[in-house]
Amino acid sequence: MGTVAIIGVGLIGGSIGLALRSRGLAERVVGVGRDPGKLAEARQLGAIDVAVTDLAEGVADSDIVVVCTPVTRIADDVRAAALSVAEDLLVMDAGSTKQRIVEKVERDPRARGAFVGAHPIAGSERQGVNHARADLFQGRACVLTPTPLTPSDRLARAREFWGSLGSLVLEMPPAEHDRALAFTSHLPHAVASALAGVIPPTLLPLAAGAYRDGTRVAAADSALWTGILLENRLPLLEALAQVENRFAELRQILTSSDAEALLQWWDSARRNRAQYDSHDSPKSSA
Amino acid sequence: MGTVAIIGVGLIGGSIGLALRSRGLAERVVGVGRDPGKLAEARQLGAIDVAVTDLAEGVADSDIVVVCTPVTRIADDVRAAALSVAEDLLVMDAGSTKQRIVEKVERDPRARGAFVGAHPIAGSERQGVNHARADLFQGRACVLTPTPLTPSDRLARAREFWGSLGSLVLEMPPAEHDRALAFTSHLPHAVASALAGVIPPTLLPLAAGAYRDGTRVAAADSALWTGILLENRLPLLEALAQVENRFAELRQILTSSDAEALLQWWDSARRNRAQYDSHDSPKSSA
Repeated sequence: MGTVAIIGVGLIGGSIGLALRSRGLAERVVGVGRDPGKLAEARQLGAIDVAVTDLAEGVADSDIVVVCTPVTRIADDVRAAALSVAEDLLVMDAGSTKQRIVEKVERDPRARGAFVGAHPIAGSERQGVNHARADLFQGRACVLTPTPLTPSDRLARAREFWGSLGSLVLEMPPAEHDRALAFTSHLPHAVASALAGVIPPTLLPLAAGAYRDGTRVAAADSALWTGILLENRLPLLEALAQVENRFAELRQILTSSDAEALLQWWDSARRNRAQYDSHDSPKSSA
Repeated sequence: MGTVAIIGVGLIGGSIGLALRSRGLAERVVGVGRDPGKLAEARQLGAIDVAVTDLAEGVADSDIVVVCTPVTRIADDVRAAALSVAEDLLVMDAGSTKQRIVEKVERDPRARGAFVGAHPIAGSERQGVNHARADLFQGRACVLTPTPLTPSDRLARAREFWGSLGSLVLEMPPAEHDRALAFTSHLPHAVASALAGVIPPTLLPLAAGAYRDGTRVAAADSALWTGILLENRLPLLEALAQVENRFAELRQILTSSDAEALLQWWDSARRNRAQYDSHDSPKSSA
């Protein structure tokens, strides 16, 4: 793979670095960030070979660049990375939303000629390179979001890149990705936060597993997650409307003490959840 | 403790039996249930010494009875258990709701003279004695819900009983328990189910940790959980209204793309959740 530059060496960027280095996939991994202290930590942990605080310098002789900054910054960082002079430069991101990022990147001819949008679906409510893991992507889905403007050779290399980290690579258009992730990730985050927001801390000694797991991701970084929710606000609003309808149904059922309707309400969700348990590991598909 | 009868030997009843027997706390543990096959399994797993399918027979010479049946059946089972001729008989339950159960039991003079309402806050989305664990209650809260009619000697013995299983014993009035648990347990279950109910199974290959944890308890037994939600429907409706308000706020914030308001919305929940992490183990208090 030659030299790989990672812009933003946190949980995701750091895990990419660890995976590349532990598998011996890259000649050199360059970490680019604004905080020299965090970059030093990333180097100490073995996530990067070289630490650079200047983006242009970091990408200058890189063959592959992966932009792992927050979604609100990704498009700008991708365009800056595309200024690298490397022939056959491949630039990818790792953002949780895709449509707006891809649109912005594709307005820049130089950037769109090098770019493949990517979203490795893996992570944690924790952040920082100290939580990075070489096996974070192993067996997890990674969605690539090519458009008609995406060069096919870059797409092939992007598939190879994420596959070599252990990801199960899928492809879908950016808008379809965003509608899907609104349901499978952004809505669960919003719901966890709504739940954590209304439970008075004085009652927490009476909380058990349902609270613990149901609110876990409410601990996720505020700037990062409010950025994602806003970036994908229209698909999220549609998903939100569905969960609001579901609550309205429950309210009606409880108000009328309708045991049979409640059983059906519960059972339909239970069946959905059972399907998840039956294929916990994401399947790869085109 | 003499002879302890457990009515309903599933996850909770089975865990009580395992804890009593592994700690050598009871002379004899009698398991009472309707399904001889499940009782045989409980005996094989070491959760009970004796299996009995007739409740009257099972409690006849028991000193302590713990009713671990679904909430809709508990009051009747407690009253039946109180027909035991044992002097100083102590009857407890392990139900997730308390007010309606305690009210029904206390209408029966014989039952109320032996009864202490109890709710060990421990469990799982799994059911059945095969998931029972001797350490299920270790370090977890158990709420006792005495009323002015509860005999103080029975209350003292109930405290000792749950304390000896490793529980951190708390006391509060039944109605207060139900209002608290509506927030800390029943609402998280309802929210998990609402979430699982709206996410199309076709998208599950794109689901990650937020979905997995946020919907875990939607897999819980339908009859058991719809019974609990209905039994506690009024406090749950109040808790539900709060989470619905929280969603309405989010809808407004997303509609107006108000980044600052979204940050505050997220942060307030994040602070609540941080308090949980700082005292994960429930504290004992009076």
